[in-house]
Amino acid sequence: MTAQPQPEYLTGDVAAINAFIDRFDVFLLDCDGVIWSGDHVFEGVVETLELLRSRGKRTVFVTNNSTKSRSDYVKKFAAMGIPSDVEDIFGSAYSSAIYISRILKLPPHQNKVFVIGEAGIESELKSENVPFIGGTDPSFRRDMTPEDWAGIADGSLLDPEVGCVLTGLDFHINYLKLSHAYQYLRRGAKFLATNVDSTFPTHNSFFPGAGSIGMPLVNSTGQKPVSLGKPSQAMMDAIEGKFHLDRERTCMIGDRLDTDIQFGIQGKLGGTLAVLTGVSHREDWEAKNAAAVPKFYVDKLSDLLKAA
Amino acid sequence: MTAQPQPEYLTGDVAAINAFIDRFDVFLLDCDGVIWSGDHVFEGVVETLELLRSRGKRTVFVTNNSTKSRSDYVKKFAAMGIPSDVEDIFGSAYSSAIYISRILKLPPHQNKVFVIGEAGIESELKSENVPFIGGTDPSFRRDMTPEDWAGIADGSLLDPEVGCVLTGLDFHINYLKLSHAYQYLRRGAKFLATNVDSTFPTHNSFFPGAGSIGMPLVNSTGQKPVSLGKPSQAMMDAIEGKFHLDRERTCMIGDRLDTDIQFGIQGKLGGTLAVLTGVSHREDWEAKNAAAVPKFYVDKLSDLLKAA
Repeated sequence: MTAQPQPEYLTGDVAAINAFIDRFDVFLLDCDGVIWSGDHVFEGVVETLELLRSRGKRTVFVTNNSTKSRSDYVKKFAAMGIPSDVEDIFGSAYSSAIYISRILKLPPHQNKVFVIGEAGIESELKSENVPFIGGTDPSFRRDMTPEDWAGIADGSLLDPEVGCVLTGLDFHINYLKLSHAYQYLRRGAKFLATNVDSTFPTHNSFFPGAGSIGMPLVNSTGQKPVSLGKPSQAMMDAIEGKFHLDRERTCMIGDRLDTDIQFGIQGKLGGTLAVLTGVSHREDWEAKNAAAVPKFYVDKLSDLLKAA
Repeated sequence: MTAQPQPEYLTGDVAAINAFIDRFDVFLLDCDGVIWSGDHVFEGVVETLELLRSRGKRTVFVTNNSTKSRSDYVKKFAAMGIPSDVEDIFGSAYSSAIYISRILKLPPHQNKVFVIGEAGIESELKSENVPFIGGTDPSFRRDMTPEDWAGIADGSLLDPEVGCVLTGLDFHINYLKLSHAYQYLRRGAKFLATNVDSTFPTHNSFFPGAGSIGMPLVNSTGQKPVSLGKPSQAMMDAIEGKFHLDRERTCMIGDRLDTDIQFGIQGKLGGTLAVLTGVSHREDWEAKNAAAVPKFYVDKLSDLLKAA
């Protein structure tokens, strides 16, 4: 049992906050639990982002939430008074689409993706010209029929061009979609997940997350998906490639030790900052078996405003 | 690495089959994968059951499928030409209802069960006078609304009398049900499962099973359910209590090593018989890390007819 070095607490310490900000050129920011909870933006966050930008910092929003596309996020940010551009946003749906189109390289006759997830995934797949079925298609949002049981079992209702199953957070998950995905995986389709967060923080509470929605498939097939969200380094590599960032001068800000903070540490970033407005608490990194220990922490993101 | 004793193969060996039948008074039979696959009864099974009964054997159907009640099973057996009585059937829905009413003993103000599952569970809970919500109630078979998100998160839409979440195979699983169950579990409700089979064999193929349908809750809460189906010995104890069986003179017949055969071995029954018409194959018990090794096996249940 080695005592892990504990993080530096910045809240209320003006000099420490200024030194922290000066250390970095780029801040990668998680959204749910850092910027907002659901549709409620945390107080002072708008001003904090303005402060960082006014000091010449690049702010990139890195989110595991795949239900929205990058352009959906631009709208959400705008509604909250935060100006942003599609290029400021890096979501797990986008990360997955890039991985499928540029790295996975499915054979032409098996290049379709069966999607469990919401519209955000579909938009990003379209932007990368990846063909897909499932997703928000109403014909998959219904009960099983006797014809489904027979046709899914014997394969006659399956699309032979599906070579990949991509699972994300799906608020319309049902047995029909799970049965299709299960059969595609049994027949050799690649298994990807936008992210494997166990819970989804919103409305000041938690709901089942993308990782939990995909678990029926993990359990029934015995296969684990390749995750394209935090803390997967596939996502970090894609971010680095896109933003040409100097990892030493980059800091990851997030609320979850097992996704955000681990993402920054495994990515060998110069810093990680935990905020206490989301999933993880101080006790979590003080625990002997902590998933990850951040380098810095604040009670809330807007505590950085003290630097002004 | 100890070589495990391998099972005796009975198919085609008349003397061995007769000796096998003579060894036992009671046969506990799994249904899916042994008697039938979906709505298709395997050839010769009706005659095999007649043979066993004609030799004075008691046949008890022990199934993890919780979608049907015992009386539903009587109808299904009748439609397949197999006479049976409610008392011949022991399902995981019934096992769960008995466990909740007689062993769990929830406090009066928290005695409601939130059900994820089909009508079979509801019938058996009713037969034991256990109050429940969820299940097949149409008001839980729909998409999430903004009011659901808010009311589930703050608890105003939760029933304060729910003290237990019971999960089974649910062909109408959705995010609304999972979100309710997740919040009840977070608030301290007991977590039970009718069974934890990873897959559901039907139509000569497989679909996601009850254990897989419950996995989003396991993953999001970090809790594991108490299972009331095979191989849980809670079910064996209940069967013994009901049928007053002599375990040494009882044989479990099934197609799954990790449920049926393990159930019989852990229950210290006199024998276990594997059939190859369902999930497990010969290679599964020949593997070094076999989940369980049966004492006997046949290609199919009707191979026992050779004894006639």
